Amino acid sequence: MKKVGVALLGLGTVGGGTYRILKKMREDIAKTDGVDIEVMHILEKDMSKVEALGIDPSIVSCDINNVINNPEISIVAEFFGGIEPARSFLMASLKAGKSIVTANKELFSKHWSDLEECAKIGNAGLYFEASCVGGVPVIRALQASMQGNRIQSIMGIVNGTTNYILTKMADEGLDYADVLKEAQRLGYAEANPSADVDGFDSMYKLSILSTLCFHKRVPIDKVYREGISKVSKIDIEFGKQLGYTLKLLAIGKMVDGKIEARVHPAFILDSNPLASVKGSFNAVLIDGDNVGDIMLYGRGAGDLPTGSAIVSDIVYAACQTEHKLSCFDNNLSAIKDSDFSTDFECEYYVRMTVEDKAGVLAKIASTLGKYDVSINTLQQTANDGAASIIFMIHKTKESNINKALAEIKSLNEVDSVDALIRVL
Amino acid sequence: MKKVGVALLGLGTVGGGTYRILKKMREDIAKTDGVDIEVMHILEKDMSKVEALGIDPSIVSCDINNVINNPEISIVAEFFGGIEPARSFLMASLKAGKSIVTANKELFSKHWSDLEECAKIGNAGLYFEASCVGGVPVIRALQASMQGNRIQSIMGIVNGTTNYILTKMADEGLDYADVLKEAQRLGYAEANPSADVDGFDSMYKLSILSTLCFHKRVPIDKVYREGISKVSKIDIEFGKQLGYTLKLLAIGKMVDGKIEARVHPAFILDSNPLASVKGSFNAVLIDGDNVGDIMLYGRGAGDLPTGSAIVSDIVYAACQTEHKLSCFDNNLSAIKDSDFSTDFECEYYVRMTVEDKAGVLAKIASTLGKYDVSINTLQQTANDGAASIIFMIHKTKESNINKALAEIKSLNEVDSVDALIRVL
Repeated sequence: MKKVGVALLGLGTVGGGTYRILKKMREDIAKTDGVDIEVMHILEKDMSKVEALGIDPSIVSCDINNVINNPEISIVAEFFGGIEPARSFLMASLKAGKSIVTANKELFSKHWSDLEECAKIGNAGLYFEASCVGGVPVIRALQASMQGNRIQSIMGIVNGTTNYILTKMADEGLDYADVLKEAQRLGYAEANPSADVDGFDSMYKLSILSTLCFHKRVPIDKVYREGISKVSKIDIEFGKQLGYTLKLLAIGKMVDGKIEARVHPAFILDSNPLASVKGSFNAVLIDGDNVGDIMLYGRGAGDLPTGSAIVSDIVYAACQTEHKLSCFDNNLSAIKDSDFSTDFECEYYVRMTVEDKAGVLAKIASTLGKYDVSINTLQQTANDGAASIIFMIHKTKESNINKALAEIKSLNEVDSVDALIRVL
Repeated sequence: MKKVGVALLGLGTVGGGTYRILKKMREDIAKTDGVDIEVMHILEKDMSKVEALGIDPSIVSCDINNVINNPEISIVAEFFGGIEPARSFLMASLKAGKSIVTANKELFSKHWSDLEECAKIGNAGLYFEASCVGGVPVIRALQASMQGNRIQSIMGIVNGTTNYILTKMADEGLDYADVLKEAQRLGYAEANPSADVDGFDSMYKLSILSTLCFHKRVPIDKVYREGISKVSKIDIEFGKQLGYTLKLLAIGKMVDGKIEARVHPAFILDSNPLASVKGSFNAVLIDGDNVGDIMLYGRGAGDLPTGSAIVSDIVYAACQTEHKLSCFDNNLSAIKDSDFSTDFECEYYVRMTVEDKAGVLAKIASTLGKYDVSINTLQQTANDGAASIIFMIHKTKESNINKALAEIKSLNEVDSVDALIRVL
């Protein structure tokens, strides 16, 4: 039987989960996949983690050279997260002919082409299923199951923390700040929650997924990003009454030959299969021109779910006789600004507070009309001299509605534009 | 670039769809996957289909030897359906070193090990993504994405025709016979609908999927099968009131080391993600011990969805340098009766008509109790001297409830047991 040596860089949550799965399933994997996978070295400085997992300390060190110089190790799985030292360690591993497996979405979205250059030098492979949507095999689906399709769009809930927060706000009518605090207490959100709630994590993942969908590098600076920290429970409630659920979506689309990539909260119809994806679950809807919509759904994070994706990649890599790299030019220099759309079209939900007197609505409507922004429905409620108006706006360009709202904000009769939420 | 010759056996719905996709996407696939795929021969006797697709008649014949003896053809995709001549043609192709791609679930579930023997002889590959759930990549997920999990269960809606019928019955309160007739008129059901409505199609697919899940051959005669032809709109309606949706499910489970495989209608809670899979859509829920539940959802049939799965398999096969076959012993002789469970446990919905007089319920309850069948809830409605009773039964063994109901049927006061539906 083919014997394959693996190194684990780091024994954090997912690293530890990976070790446990590899240990428990070694014989199973040998039987079902015909490869004997042995963890031969681990980089970790916290020996309490080593001990807790019952690992022989003689295979643990803090020196990457123990990995790179070991010819029996052919696969390196990385769990550090962040850019350094992950990047240097993985580049050196690849150049030394070791395939890499990682869940590191930030590294991959920022340095994919560097890693790919090193993989070419070392004739090694890049495996990153775990970087997007944890245990749900969306990367393999895009790489190995959708070749009979031109992908028209990908749309997903790819961050569990924000989905947990939005679900809780909707189901229990709670405020953002309160739910965030609880999520932090329960360990679902980090002490510094910005990577999740400001959409960075989703942006990294969308960059990777869109690149796979459209066979063109979609760098993170081409991804529009807006988080959930300004979402209010009032708008979630109004949306509910109108038949919509609010989700933080990552959307990649090919529109008229241009790639549109964006992360932002959006109202989706309750009948959309993504609307019923609750709590920490993730899901991705991929629209192929031949297959139509397919959806993949499951847990996007956690030691064992993400660990299982890492193990799947390790086994997959171990079974390859030749590693396949991108066939498209994955270099950043291969892309042009004109490959990307910057001004996208959407329907919108707008809530504003205005003075409750005659003529205000006419002024607002006329300003919207001036910028070609057309009202679908509106709903006005008066309250102590002020009125709250909710507009549902027909599909229009982002630039148009932004210009219209800037002008509307400057009207004396308008107190505030309180919410602008895209509607899909 | 690697050039790969393909033969198509048959130009029916899916064969035609596959040809169109391969033609349209030849350049795309060359760019994104680095292989140039050329259709080099087609078996088809109906020249009107050949003409309709604009195919050069010189590459069309009715002689499989034109495929087998062509050394430039390395992949054979089969669209005949049924056992012969598909089986002989594919076995001969495999022995000649050509990998096969097929959507033929009946052939695959009945003759997998024969095909695998031939594949070993010819050093060729077996690709059958399209055989289960059309364009949804469930086979690849099981083979190449779930290796870090012991699969505990798979549960799916894998037949679009029956799901269309059940959805329509539920949404519009129609009778089975009327909906079937309409489905036949619209081409969603065959003139002889038995393969779909009696659960054969789901049984073939479950045999294949369970084999992949549990790494042990699950032959079709080990799959319990019950179709939807006896389903009545009354029970769908009662189920709805209780918060359940009725679906035809294919279920494979590992219970105490034994495989349980069954196809039957079942009530699932409305909150189960499978409950919202409507019309001709399919979905499969896979429970891995590490990843938890993942769900894959999409179109299970149709020329382009299934064609896109065939094309994905062709591209995947074309990119392999070595074809991977089952590592478990896939021979029928490797299985024992004791590998399979025959008596499974479920909750049940039972509807019966009884005489509306004192003491009847006590008799029924006592008979249920005698066989260790315990009532969760019951609901009785009287109607002209007769009463209709609906029992929701706690989890019990199939053998127990069957014995209890046989005895209940023989009671003088019981007119009929009208429905017995499993509840998940």
